[in-house]
Amino acid sequence: MPSAEPAPGTSFGTQILARADALAAITEDPPGVTRSYLTAQHRQAGELIAQWMREAGMSVHWDALGNVVGRYAGQTADAPVVMTGSHMDSVRNAGRYDGLFGILSPIACVADLHRRARRLPVAIEVVAFGDEEGVRFGVSLIGSKAMAGRFDAAWLDQADADGVTMREALQRFGGDPQAVASLDRRGGAVVAFVESHIEQGPVLLQAGLPLGIVTAIAGGSRIRCAVTGLAGHAGTVPMGARQDALAAAAEMVLALERHCTEHPGLVGTVGRMTVLPGAINVIPQDVSFTIDLRSGDDATRHAALDAVRERCRAIATRRGVRVAFDVFLELGAAPCDARLQQMLADAVAAQGLPVHRLPSGAGHDAMEFPPVCPMAMLFVRCGNGGISHHPSESLTASDAQVATAALLHFFEHVDPSRVRGPSGPHAVGGRA
Amino acid sequence: MPSAEPAPGTSFGTQILARADALAAITEDPPGVTRSYLTAQHRQAGELIAQWMREAGMSVHWDALGNVVGRYAGQTADAPVVMTGSHMDSVRNAGRYDGLFGILSPIACVADLHRRARRLPVAIEVVAFGDEEGVRFGVSLIGSKAMAGRFDAAWLDQADADGVTMREALQRFGGDPQAVASLDRRGGAVVAFVESHIEQGPVLLQAGLPLGIVTAIAGGSRIRCAVTGLAGHAGTVPMGARQDALAAAAEMVLALERHCTEHPGLVGTVGRMTVLPGAINVIPQDVSFTIDLRSGDDATRHAALDAVRERCRAIATRRGVRVAFDVFLELGAAPCDARLQQMLADAVAAQGLPVHRLPSGAGHDAMEFPPVCPMAMLFVRCGNGGISHHPSESLTASDAQVATAALLHFFEHVDPSRVRGPSGPHAVGGRA
Repeated sequence: MPSAEPAPGTSFGTQILARADALAAITEDPPGVTRSYLTAQHRQAGELIAQWMREAGMSVHWDALGNVVGRYAGQTADAPVVMTGSHMDSVRNAGRYDGLFGILSPIACVADLHRRARRLPVAIEVVAFGDEEGVRFGVSLIGSKAMAGRFDAAWLDQADADGVTMREALQRFGGDPQAVASLDRRGGAVVAFVESHIEQGPVLLQAGLPLGIVTAIAGGSRIRCAVTGLAGHAGTVPMGARQDALAAAAEMVLALERHCTEHPGLVGTVGRMTVLPGAINVIPQDVSFTIDLRSGDDATRHAALDAVRERCRAIATRRGVRVAFDVFLELGAAPCDARLQQMLADAVAAQGLPVHRLPSGAGHDAMEFPPVCPMAMLFVRCGNGGISHHPSESLTASDAQVATAALLHFFEHVDPSRVRGPSGPHAVGGRA
Repeated sequence: MPSAEPAPGTSFGTQILARADALAAITEDPPGVTRSYLTAQHRQAGELIAQWMREAGMSVHWDALGNVVGRYAGQTADAPVVMTGSHMDSVRNAGRYDGLFGILSPIACVADLHRRARRLPVAIEVVAFGDEEGVRFGVSLIGSKAMAGRFDAAWLDQADADGVTMREALQRFGGDPQAVASLDRRGGAVVAFVESHIEQGPVLLQAGLPLGIVTAIAGGSRIRCAVTGLAGHAGTVPMGARQDALAAAAEMVLALERHCTEHPGLVGTVGRMTVLPGAINVIPQDVSFTIDLRSGDDATRHAALDAVRERCRAIATRRGVRVAFDVFLELGAAPCDARLQQMLADAVAAQGLPVHRLPSGAGHDAMEFPPVCPMAMLFVRCGNGGISHHPSESLTASDAQVATAALLHFFEHVDPSRVRGPSGPHAVGGRA
């Protein structure tokens, strides 16, 4: 129904917001938005997205892992593919734009091309990934990992909270656990992956700008810290004779905060803390807490990890307590491709906007694509203080509008020969 | 069996330690020591104590609340009464001297008087209180409160973890809920309450002294603090844009510690803390923690409470978070009677020891007695770093020896007319 599509430049934004509202109504626990992998809601949301893709002129299929893939053919049958998209699953009690914006905005772009009967030198594939958040099976980015050849068959045996394995759930859903290897897009026609996404932070909001170009998806370290002091009676042990594990941990929390504040490009968070024995009148003996440390630059992050551990050890020594660290996750940063960044920057400038670059502190499907092809990301401003993963996540129609217009500009101007040049060696293999 | 008693000055200590071992074997969860109010273990421990009291020449009875009271008559039938004793219940997984030492040491003193057929101008009553810790019914110091006329009949309806009320448990035990008022000793013959107790802290240990005279039983404030920040994604919110409730709480923990360290006579403890939402990758939004603040001087404690709250509010303001305080317990300090302190000091000096005075940070049965009579306490050194309420609580035979010798000296030299003088107005009514 191309004739039903509105004129370009006027209604991308309002349509995208209305479609996000329609998807938000497909939820496991209304009125909150919760949509997990391989559920009835996954099926229902995917069907609605597939319908919109078909209306936009795309051919559509569900792949073996429950991803919805829409394809808008290029000028030739063997045109190189620019892939875009994001995820249709959500965290529990989520917002309505995380992931979905990166599906709805390229569908709107393709619909506009289709309305104008415009074919490009590249084919556009829009993917709605079935799982990015990893809520149900504890494995995240399942679809994009499969496309990058990093799907581990052992994940099929992971069970959800009800004991249902991913294999069982996938079979019931109509997927095909045997066919996952066929999703691997390495060495194929895909020359670029570009993801549009709500920022999920306050940087653009504070800068007063609707759009930003992502420089890198931050790498991260996750560390469990265990502080062991000595319990004692809260009334009888003088202040100078204490080995208070919580007071030591409090100093460590502030040492992490100070280091990350003083060194640009770092964020560090203590998100969990448990205090034992946890009695009002007993000096804490055992405190455990987690550190989440991220940076777009791996060397910066590693130096920070070393510095913070050294500082924590000094605090422990001075206070007569012990501290132990367990680095249980290490994920390298994924720098965005410089030439794709520049093409996105040109598209932003074409909207009359200044080009603002920022790292992404959160992980995204795009970060899995370097083994397939160069990747880049376009961020759109997140309202309401930058809050995300929360019902109060917000996006304005005008920001959705300008982001989609920039994305359309990118698709219309992307030059696959420039992407696949000598300094774009990611097309086959590359950094995992 | 007075003839079986050993010579004085040689074996108080070893006998007391052996008896503490015998009582430690009477436990709800061997090998740990746990003895709760109105249990079979309470009965069994009380019967053993009653037997030792009778062997020491005392008449013994179980009172309506399950306290064991032994009386060693004075030179006349109407001799004023010096009361002593402590508690036979314990916390879970306790040490073996907390409470028990204050029962076993005066029994040893009386046994020695009895062996020498010595009667004093005062009668001595030794009480083994059934409940001080309050583990089972959530009400502490039940026996001493009843003797001070402060038993609240509503406590009889308090249920334990199995839903058994104190009334039911007391009736099964053979006590008499109707007769509690008869335990009120106000306005009667009791002229002093003196409690011997293990210190439960490291002050005497660090001073290298076996004995100390308690100046006051500390008053305490207990406060619930709630810090409310703003949750956010650990990767996407820059350090400068955070309202991290845990970082704010960490500063508050250290502010409390600093104030109490810089102001003598105070101890402050954050014993509980919960952090929500408690996800590794989410900036904490809600942190609640408790403050336990104690001092032997109420004005010092109140000033500290004000200063710490003001400091926490300043931290909250600077960090853009909110903090709320709920002072849910206020207990005034109980100063020990100056003349009884001096009599105990004379008894300590008679052992050839320097007189060391210190406050008690923990609560004790003695603190309930001011409505009845003046009170004082003798502390004996706690080994092993001063740890108590723990299986590693320790007491040496030689310290038990000298403490008991000092207590015996006190009983032999106490002058009831000096206690009941014009500046000892506690005998009837007084501070509650």
